[in-house]
Amino acid sequence: MGMKVTPWEVSGHINYEKLIKEFGTSRITKGLLEKLASYGKLNVMLRRGFFFSHRDLDLVLKDYETGKGFFLYTGRAPSGPMHLGHLLPFMITKWFQDTFKVNLYIQIPDEEKFLAKRDIRSLEETDRWVKDNILDIIAVGFDPNRTFIFQNREYAKNMYSMAVKIAKKVTFSTAKAVFGFTNETNIGMIFYPAMQIVPTFFEKKRCLIPSAIDQDPYWRIQRDIAESMGYYKTAAIHSKFFPPLSGIIGKMSSSKQEDAIYLSDSPEEVRYKIMRYAFSGGGATIKEHREKGGNTEVDVAYQWLYIIFEENDNKIAKIKEEYESGKMLTGELKNYLIEKINRFLEEHRKGKKRAEKLIDKFKHDGKLAREMWERVI
Amino acid sequence: MGMKVTPWEVSGHINYEKLIKEFGTSRITKGLLEKLASYGKLNVMLRRGFFFSHRDLDLVLKDYETGKGFFLYTGRAPSGPMHLGHLLPFMITKWFQDTFKVNLYIQIPDEEKFLAKRDIRSLEETDRWVKDNILDIIAVGFDPNRTFIFQNREYAKNMYSMAVKIAKKVTFSTAKAVFGFTNETNIGMIFYPAMQIVPTFFEKKRCLIPSAIDQDPYWRIQRDIAESMGYYKTAAIHSKFFPPLSGIIGKMSSSKQEDAIYLSDSPEEVRYKIMRYAFSGGGATIKEHREKGGNTEVDVAYQWLYIIFEENDNKIAKIKEEYESGKMLTGELKNYLIEKINRFLEEHRKGKKRAEKLIDKFKHDGKLAREMWERVI
Repeated sequence: MGMKVTPWEVSGHINYEKLIKEFGTSRITKGLLEKLASYGKLNVMLRRGFFFSHRDLDLVLKDYETGKGFFLYTGRAPSGPMHLGHLLPFMITKWFQDTFKVNLYIQIPDEEKFLAKRDIRSLEETDRWVKDNILDIIAVGFDPNRTFIFQNREYAKNMYSMAVKIAKKVTFSTAKAVFGFTNETNIGMIFYPAMQIVPTFFEKKRCLIPSAIDQDPYWRIQRDIAESMGYYKTAAIHSKFFPPLSGIIGKMSSSKQEDAIYLSDSPEEVRYKIMRYAFSGGGATIKEHREKGGNTEVDVAYQWLYIIFEENDNKIAKIKEEYESGKMLTGELKNYLIEKINRFLEEHRKGKKRAEKLIDKFKHDGKLAREMWERVI
Repeated sequence: MGMKVTPWEVSGHINYEKLIKEFGTSRITKGLLEKLASYGKLNVMLRRGFFFSHRDLDLVLKDYETGKGFFLYTGRAPSGPMHLGHLLPFMITKWFQDTFKVNLYIQIPDEEKFLAKRDIRSLEETDRWVKDNILDIIAVGFDPNRTFIFQNREYAKNMYSMAVKIAKKVTFSTAKAVFGFTNETNIGMIFYPAMQIVPTFFEKKRCLIPSAIDQDPYWRIQRDIAESMGYYKTAAIHSKFFPPLSGIIGKMSSSKQEDAIYLSDSPEEVRYKIMRYAFSGGGATIKEHREKGGNTEVDVAYQWLYIIFEENDNKIAKIKEEYESGKMLTGELKNYLIEKINRFLEEHRKGKKRAEKLIDKFKHDGKLAREMWERVI
């Protein structure tokens, strides 16, 4: 199965080395990781190579050192409840904000999914998820005075002029080549990239965008036009795709129940889904497993632990060894993961409750939010 | 020379009969004019057939009679000072507002020219004309409590959601066919039609748009999608193009000094331009003129008098007769026009001075303006 990676579709076996070459990004090297580690304990997703690729991260760090500084930007287009995979870019973003104490802009493009998906018939269909998604995002724990969360349609007056300036620099030809637009693409979708690029110009500093690598096409266009507009080419760090429960092909999708753990799933649902759906790299029988061991490369439970849920390097090494040697069974591995996830989700739900009170600060009343509502960019 | 009529280019000898067929609009019939005349003294531009074509004007009048009502919408994209030709759609619009006492929305698309013209390098280049143009428009004398003047970039938050809904219904294919977009068209220009269509949905009544016929492609798209969105297909009345001084080919253009009389031209400038540039249908010599008479069909001074500056039907008939018979000379005809225009411009300038105090009412504080700022459509 060939791989396909666009902002709207990810499928097939993903060859990340090939993506780096095709997209023209850079691998995050050991040297770069060591440099990052000098500012604070490396986040597990960096340490384990889940964030594997970047553009100009080295220049971001240089700007930080020389005092120029930088800012962070990421986002989420609401169309349903958030699952674990959706949270990872926000978690690495929090690590960067905590470590470097910089401003963060979180775009909620509340028009994108409506424009992109034929089966979403009204803006109201996605609007009903906006607040819930924002609460999930706030629960990650950003600094409310250094973070601005904005919905494109609410913030349109402040963004539209810049979107127009960006749009003038992008021909249909370019958009077609980068996003695969066709004659049947609607004219809102064709314009939308301008809206997603706007926040990279919110400050006259370098912007660092943590996201999965499928979003990179937007940043490629931004980098083509930024300097001619008097701004910096944006920097980015790219993650791999968080594997769906059903196996390490494509990315976790909201459209298949059996693929995702939602942030709202109860402990019982988590247990059921992982026991029932998490693709196992274990032997077909206990006997076979004890003899040959499990395959951690394809085992989703192991992969999830490795990517995010078991931060302790010694523990994950021990799990790998025991699972591959056949000492640890699939059920034991899954139970370990279930406990980890349920503890994580319990904390998340507490954070989400607290978020209710913070939402106004992030959107309107916090220090950065107030500044941003007074500005038309 | 073949004719070309798009919202961005008008050139060649315009065959208006052919345009009606090509665009699929309807001629404004005598019957329709008589009907209009039953509501108030017909505006000269209707009487003389300068507004010659329409869509659903009959339905507008029906809606008015049954008490459903209708509303007016027109606009102006600023990129320089306004000339006489720019004012005509506003003058007919005023006639409709005065006659039917209806709401009027005036769009100032302060992004359009920047997006459409390669040689306009910044939004600031067009922004410096916005206020001056708005004052010229207000000087026409609209009802400040029934008229809302809005700039797209200022009003973007209130328009963007509807623009997105419209945009989803228009494919690049359609926009290409209707506007002649190419692969080299920028993505802002491709989206822009959605912004121009938005105001046709400001009320759940039929919208009537007075404009030159080159704007009709926008209304064609609107009419394709309006009913599926729960709104009325917009109605329109279309004018011919106000002939440039240099001759009755194409339309009056701001880019050629010798083609246009600006609203800011002094009496001396008006005299100079008309004497020097107004294409004459008179004989090559006085002798020839006295013998053969002048050709009113191609004489720009006569055409201007006919279209707008001599409202008195008896007087214009007499001028025609005297000019065609050779009794009236070109110089006399031009002098007559010069006096008319200068009197008109003097009044206009007075109105423009008064407009300074009204601008806030039209944009923010008038009854309709206040309502519109409270709504997100």
